[in-house]
Amino acid sequence: MEQNHGLLIVLSGPSGAGKGTLCQELLRQMPQVKYSVSATTRQPRPGEVDGLHYFFRSREEFQAMIEQDQLLEWAEFCGNFYGTPKFAVEQAIHAGNDVILEIEIQGALQVKKRFSQGVFIFVVPPSMDELAQRIHKRGTESEEIIQKRLKTAARELEYVSEYDYVVINDEIPIAVDKLKSILVAEKCRVKRKPYVFQGV
Amino acid sequence: MEQNHGLLIVLSGPSGAGKGTLCQELLRQMPQVKYSVSATTRQPRPGEVDGLHYFFRSREEFQAMIEQDQLLEWAEFCGNFYGTPKFAVEQAIHAGNDVILEIEIQGALQVKKRFSQGVFIFVVPPSMDELAQRIHKRGTESEEIIQKRLKTAARELEYVSEYDYVVINDEIPIAVDKLKSILVAEKCRVKRKPYVFQGV
Repeated sequence: MEQNHGLLIVLSGPSGAGKGTLCQELLRQMPQVKYSVSATTRQPRPGEVDGLHYFFRSREEFQAMIEQDQLLEWAEFCGNFYGTPKFAVEQAIHAGNDVILEIEIQGALQVKKRFSQGVFIFVVPPSMDELAQRIHKRGTESEEIIQKRLKTAARELEYVSEYDYVVINDEIPIAVDKLKSILVAEKCRVKRKPYVFQGV
Repeated sequence: MEQNHGLLIVLSGPSGAGKGTLCQELLRQMPQVKYSVSATTRQPRPGEVDGLHYFFRSREEFQAMIEQDQLLEWAEFCGNFYGTPKFAVEQAIHAGNDVILEIEIQGALQVKKRFSQGVFIFVVPPSMDELAQRIHKRGTESEEIIQKRLKTAARELEYVSEYDYVVINDEIPIAVDKLKSILVAEKCRVKRKPYVFQGV
């Protein structure tokens, strides 16, 4: 890894773990961190803005991005495609900015293969009951999709061992503090900084 | 590593880097972290208390501790012996408490061989000029010893690659915040916590 490169922070975890909320709060508190906007074929939820929350694309448009190798990772999840456009991420990191990706687990594992120097953080809810409640409370999905998400979440928890860190999202401010600490600590890691000592 | 064990935090670095000051401030802000008192044959500096800052021992007493395998590490440094009594450290960690060792580099490398799961932090001054100024300001050593310490410090900087983290001690509050972040982050590391997810 070259000097002065930013960190690639991959925030992932089961659906409903609250990684979106944590990501938003982290970006609010650390505005120097850049958010990588994902592309998706799913329908926008109320309030979601194209280009800000996601790049909303048709299946045909998404397929073209895959074929032209424009995605750092992509995955099909609950019948929709999700992916990370490559260009913006690489540009930001090479310019020394930290970039955060908030993505599903399948995608995170693809990123890990290409960017093993990334910081891989697994966000989990405090319990399965809590997870079920959160997905229900969101109220934007049908019961069938909710059940599908819960089953997927239970299976996905096994992927924790592929990650560097696990953050239990019990109370948001505490979880965000942990994320901030992880970023600060990673910047102190000897393997990340070819150490330059002035005056030796 | 068994579950519920505390962290063994090893704070080390060249003489005069200010690791003692950082350690004291960290302990003040995180009183749940236990300080491991070292044994030494050097003379107490003004204000230093036996059993609190160091266990001050004669060379004969220290030699007996080495022979009876009572030390986690020990080293001779500038003509004096320094070492970490084993018993208290192991007891605290097994009870789930975090323990911090503030030790010289030779000792830290010995600890690393025995406790590779420790968190090894290298504290450095911002420059060699600053280091020289700090050692002079302390005013407790002769010029000959100061020159010896500076030469040792320059050589010791090369050991940074043996450590997990490097913290530049430029401004104390910033450096302490980095240490605190490292502790919080290390507790989130997947490799440290056999993950137990409630309700799965």
